[in-house]
Amino acid sequence: MSITVPTDSINNESAVAALALFRSECATRGLALSFAIADAGGNIVLSYRTDGAQLGSYQLAQDKAYTAVAFQNPTSAWAESSTPGNPDWGIALTLGGRATVVAGGVPLFVSGKLVGAIGVSGTKGTIDEEIATSIASQIGCEVRP
Amino acid sequence: MSITVPTDSINNESAVAALALFRSECATRGLALSFAIADAGGNIVLSYRTDGAQLGSYQLAQDKAYTAVAFQNPTSAWAESSTPGNPDWGIALTLGGRATVVAGGVPLFVSGKLVGAIGVSGTKGTIDEEIATSIASQIGCEVRP
Amino acid sequence: MSITVPTDSINNESAVAALALFRSECATRGLALSFAIADAGGNIVLSYRTDGAQLGSYQLAQDKAYTAVAFQNPTSAWAESSTPGNPDWGIALTLGGRATVVAGGVPLFVSGKLVGAIGVSGTKGTIDEEIATSIASQIGCEVRP
Amino acid sequence: MSITVPTDSINNESAVAALALFRSECATRGLALSFAIADAGGNIVLSYRTDGAQLGSYQLAQDKAYTAVAFQNPTSAWAESSTPGNPDWGIALTLGGRATVVAGGVPLFVSGKLVGAIGVSGTKGTIDEEIATSIASQIGCEVRP
Repeated sequence: MSITVPTDSINNESAVAALALFRSECATRGLALSFAIADAGGNIVLSYRTDGAQLGSYQLAQDKAYTAVAFQNPTSAWAESSTPGNPDWGIALTLGGRATVVAGGVPLFVSGKLVGAIGVSGTKGTIDEEIATSIASQIGCEVRP
Repeated sequence: MSITVPTDSINNESAVAALALFRSECATRGLALSFAIADAGGNIVLSYRTDGAQLGSYQLAQDKAYTAVAFQNPTSAWAESSTPGNPDWGIALTLGGRATVVAGGVPLFVSGKLVGAIGVSGTKGTIDEEIATSIASQIGCEVRP
Repeated sequence: MSITVPTDSINNESAVAALALFRSECATRGLALSFAIADAGGNIVLSYRTDGAQLGSYQLAQDKAYTAVAFQNPTSAWAESSTPGNPDWGIALTLGGRATVVAGGVPLFVSGKLVGAIGVSGTKGTIDEEIATSIASQIGCEVRP
Repeated sequence: MSITVPTDSINNESAVAALALFRSECATRGLALSFAIADAGGNIVLSYRTDGAQLGSYQLAQDKAYTAVAFQNPTSAWAESSTPGNPDWGIALTLGGRATVVAGGVPLFVSGKLVGAIGVSGTKGTIDEEIATSIASQIGCEVRP
């Protein structure tokens, strides 16, 4: 009888490849953003802030990655349902202040299993998410199970 | 003249029984959720995360139990009144970030006295609350005074 | 080329078995203690406080389990080296206040791989550790790689 | 009359070069460590955790880098003077828990001006510091003013 449950997490090579993609994406778009990648336990593996990026974006990118792991969904998934009067109202205030419903955090799935998440922050949430999703795909992950 | 005030809290046997009920509820429904039970002082007695549950649900289940003790009501009680412009606006932001109005936290009463609370998290708030309420009843508690 | 790194974590059945062992250990010894079990990512899977245990022991058991995962060693490993003037002086003050060098946290290894940790708190550190180590062994884990 | 004060900080290219040096240093030595680099404002620019490194080393590497900027000295500089009864007793407890006197944090100077710091964590403090110092030198910085 097994006493453990297996988990797979995004590895260093993928994290470093993702950073290179992020840096070239920022250069191409002329944007100064922050980037973070978390493992399946929500622990950050790598984070990075472009020179000139908003200082706050560094923490926010990490919180987006953490939230995407913690709730196994893109952070934007709760944008509607977490507004006052809707069923998830209040969820953006949880996890000791680390939860966020700002777009830009996307979970990473491989063969339907959660292996980590990417968080991007520093510009419009929709663009942050577009970049995070594009990087996820380029390193061979899906953002849905 | 008495110099003390008596408190009754849910005991270990009830907490462990509640955990067993919770585990069988999760198995029956095919859901991976988190569970917490707090005493009358709002301090958690037992908490548990099902393999595969959202990581964030572990903290959230505890915060739901804590809030239900702290405000002596189901967490869902404030869902409407805590929205902007309503009388309890802001309550979801209190208690150092531990307060939550997401459904799934229910207080436990015995003979009209608060003895603790149960928090369930990880799926829709209405189902979390339904499970918490059902467990409360099965261990012999009411969720109203 | 693999894009992930595998991790195994202690599973729910083992966590629940460990809780039962802990409860019977407390009963046999006539001690009121707290217990926590963390996965390989340092996230708590189950925690429990015996009626009458020191309230602080609940948090401390979790911090011991977390530290044992975070530093891949029993918390007692740093008891000497972290004293003033020794090479790890200051380590007990790190991890945002969650690190502890108080005995009672032991890592769990299976086939040389870290799969989680157990923390016990509430009595002398040496006894806390003895209980944690005994439970680890009974659920089929080693406390060294 | 000038109304500003100039600051120079380590830039992205240097941070990424330092990461590459760190990764090759870990591979050569067969060590799994964590790395962080802070700017002159003490804000982290890049941090990274090797697969298999102690989870706690990730936070510790950042705190080492932060402390080295905050006090403009290697973190090891206070190892003696911060012990009880000595002049800097208590310094390891400051900065909201982020200060650390564990070796492995080194400030980065260019032409005598502080431009940031490197933190390395995960093995003996003396080796952490040796690696941090070596990387500092290879990216063209001094670790003393």
